[in-house]
Amino acid sequence: MSILIKNCLLNNKKTSIYIEDNIIKEIKPNIFVEAEHKIDATNKAAIPGLINAHTHAAMTLFRGYADDLELHDWLQNYIWPLEAKLTYNDLYWGTKLACIEMIKTGTTCFNDMYFFTRAVAKAVIEAGIRTFAGPVFIDLFDKERREAEIKRHSADLLAVKKLNHPRVIPVVNPHSVYSVSKEGLEWNRDFAKENDMMLHIHLAETEEENKKSLELNKKRPVDYLEELKMLSPKLVAAHCVWLKKDEIIKLAKYDVKIAHNPVSNMKLAVGRALNYDEMKKAGLTVALGTDGCASNNNLDVFESMKFASLMQKFSFNKQTIMPDDEALKLATLNGYKAFALNGGVIEEGKLADLLLIDLNRIQFIPNHNLTSNIVYSANGNCVNTTICDGKILMQNRKVKDEEKIKEKAQEVAYNLIRK
Amino acid sequence: MSILIKNCLLNNKKTSIYIEDNIIKEIKPNIFVEAEHKIDATNKAAIPGLINAHTHAAMTLFRGYADDLELHDWLQNYIWPLEAKLTYNDLYWGTKLACIEMIKTGTTCFNDMYFFTRAVAKAVIEAGIRTFAGPVFIDLFDKERREAEIKRHSADLLAVKKLNHPRVIPVVNPHSVYSVSKEGLEWNRDFAKENDMMLHIHLAETEEENKKSLELNKKRPVDYLEELKMLSPKLVAAHCVWLKKDEIIKLAKYDVKIAHNPVSNMKLAVGRALNYDEMKKAGLTVALGTDGCASNNNLDVFESMKFASLMQKFSFNKQTIMPDDEALKLATLNGYKAFALNGGVIEEGKLADLLLIDLNRIQFIPNHNLTSNIVYSANGNCVNTTICDGKILMQNRKVKDEEKIKEKAQEVAYNLIRK
Repeated sequence: MSILIKNCLLNNKKTSIYIEDNIIKEIKPNIFVEAEHKIDATNKAAIPGLINAHTHAAMTLFRGYADDLELHDWLQNYIWPLEAKLTYNDLYWGTKLACIEMIKTGTTCFNDMYFFTRAVAKAVIEAGIRTFAGPVFIDLFDKERREAEIKRHSADLLAVKKLNHPRVIPVVNPHSVYSVSKEGLEWNRDFAKENDMMLHIHLAETEEENKKSLELNKKRPVDYLEELKMLSPKLVAAHCVWLKKDEIIKLAKYDVKIAHNPVSNMKLAVGRALNYDEMKKAGLTVALGTDGCASNNNLDVFESMKFASLMQKFSFNKQTIMPDDEALKLATLNGYKAFALNGGVIEEGKLADLLLIDLNRIQFIPNHNLTSNIVYSANGNCVNTTICDGKILMQNRKVKDEEKIKEKAQEVAYNLIRK
Repeated sequence: MSILIKNCLLNNKKTSIYIEDNIIKEIKPNIFVEAEHKIDATNKAAIPGLINAHTHAAMTLFRGYADDLELHDWLQNYIWPLEAKLTYNDLYWGTKLACIEMIKTGTTCFNDMYFFTRAVAKAVIEAGIRTFAGPVFIDLFDKERREAEIKRHSADLLAVKKLNHPRVIPVVNPHSVYSVSKEGLEWNRDFAKENDMMLHIHLAETEEENKKSLELNKKRPVDYLEELKMLSPKLVAAHCVWLKKDEIIKLAKYDVKIAHNPVSNMKLAVGRALNYDEMKKAGLTVALGTDGCASNNNLDVFESMKFASLMQKFSFNKQTIMPDDEALKLATLNGYKAFALNGGVIEEGKLADLLLIDLNRIQFIPNHNLTSNIVYSANGNCVNTTICDGKILMQNRKVKDEEKIKEKAQEVAYNLIRK
């Protein structure tokens, strides 16, 4: 497969981009080459594909099902009962729906923590984007439950590993230090190490979590994870809003990767904003996530960039914090770096995960500053073309099978509620 | 002009809506009547048009020109120097651009405080939406400047009044208690009273403003406005984030209308969230605004609904505050009520300002709860059809002269920077 993009704007200059297989081969003002696909990108800007560093993709099925509820009411009476009913088929269609939404809003890679990872893998392989995916491990300190989880996890993760698919990478997902026993966390750690997989955990999302960890583990979550030797460059920690400065420094020491979810943090009223400036100072890699559709309620990373930057300015009384280019970096380069992917930037030799932004959209008029318009004015609807792994997944906002998938996923969602 | 909308969803029921002149005449499951325009609204939901209760529309020209700057640097070195150069022509094209953006994102009425109101009026009359518009009055406690402002304001406001246009209503806009002298404020008050116009002011946006008012006027802003007899049901106060409880009660006593601007408040780091619960308890009418494009950077009221609700939840540590239906009410009924317009709800006898929402958009799939999807999942791009004052301004996302206006406004914006 080869793609030649002509006349696109890249860093404010008109240029051509030539893609061969899944790699950006050449970037030059004029490229003369035969390509299978030619795209005239006049009045379009090329930017890297966005990466969603923390989500539960198939929660698209729950979109709008339960909002504006007190946290425990929401979880216990709405989310958990529905999750208990989820099947392979639900995960497959929920993830397919999520992939359509991500492609349409410019996300080329997502980090998923949910159920039935084989269904997720099938959906993502068909959709054409990338995922780091694994089932969520929760044992609630119960031995029997732990053993069942270990069995289920080994099977799912090894099955996905066996696929050996370049776009579907298994990731080990212990839920959190307050829902997984020491033995459970150790199993996750060891399994990830043996199989050379990344780890992904919820960390310091609420004050309650820190208190519960002190009660259960006699340590705050970061110290506890250090004791368990789980802090490493291959750990992605989602949320991380309730951290002390010395904990930020500790996470940086181990090069742990941070997945920030501003929309979810605000909607679920976690009570504190990510300490971005301290994290930046400490040298941490901060990436951006949407969290699941039950707490967001969409997968639009463009929207999350605006929320991330504005939440910082508001929470720290500082207009200059997280300027537009840094917000964009969270959603591109930092995310790709967090997952050790050779992308997140449009350069020769990098993965061909990129977007063409329609500069004719009203949100880009005038266009004094493209990055500002992307972060503060636009939303995911500005994406005209989505290319992932060297394949065109959307052009002129058309995605293959979109109508069919929406119809079927909607049916699956309604049946799930009625079960 | 008559419009018959068939098969649309209204409050979860399939129905037809018949519009004659600028009024919703009939709502019934089946209406058999000849109409000039027939719209098949299958898989579309009808909701009231949105109202933007506080903006500076022509600031669209500044979109992305200056962001991420310390407040005084931003104002003194970027915004004010540009504003000093604005001409009638700039205002005309900037407002035309703003109108296109508003129509495309479902806004049918806006409250404008800026310059060259005759140009604003011309642009709005052509665009087809409604405005309350007036020049901004700033005298900086200088007598000469005040006299010039009075002259300019009388001329502009009386000229717009003379148009006697049903969609363009002059409004008197003293900027704030820290930028207008006592005599200036009194002139605004008296002029509004004599001409039966509404008043619109910035109020308690920052802590600094309260301090400055104490210094200059020996009173906090609310008490000072009370002393000047400016508090009334015909005063729209924008921002109102730095208020004490007794000030909220005082504003409610006078039935002052509140224009809340969550995105701008966050981006400009005003340091505090609107005390929505106290305002609700006090019975205040709270409407929603975007503020200008320099501090937002778009005019998408859908986006502002999400920001409003999430900012409340986050700031007050409460997941249940400002649920989806209340956020939607801020942007519809409350706004229309604030301006004493007979609309903001789809009922027989009301103004025909309404939208058809495209339920086939991915943000509405599944559609467990339309209001949740509107507020938390969608953005202005979900609007398929915008009807204002009984006229179709957009259908299938097409607005008359959009391309021409975008091109010309962009040129005007670039020339303004180069001046």
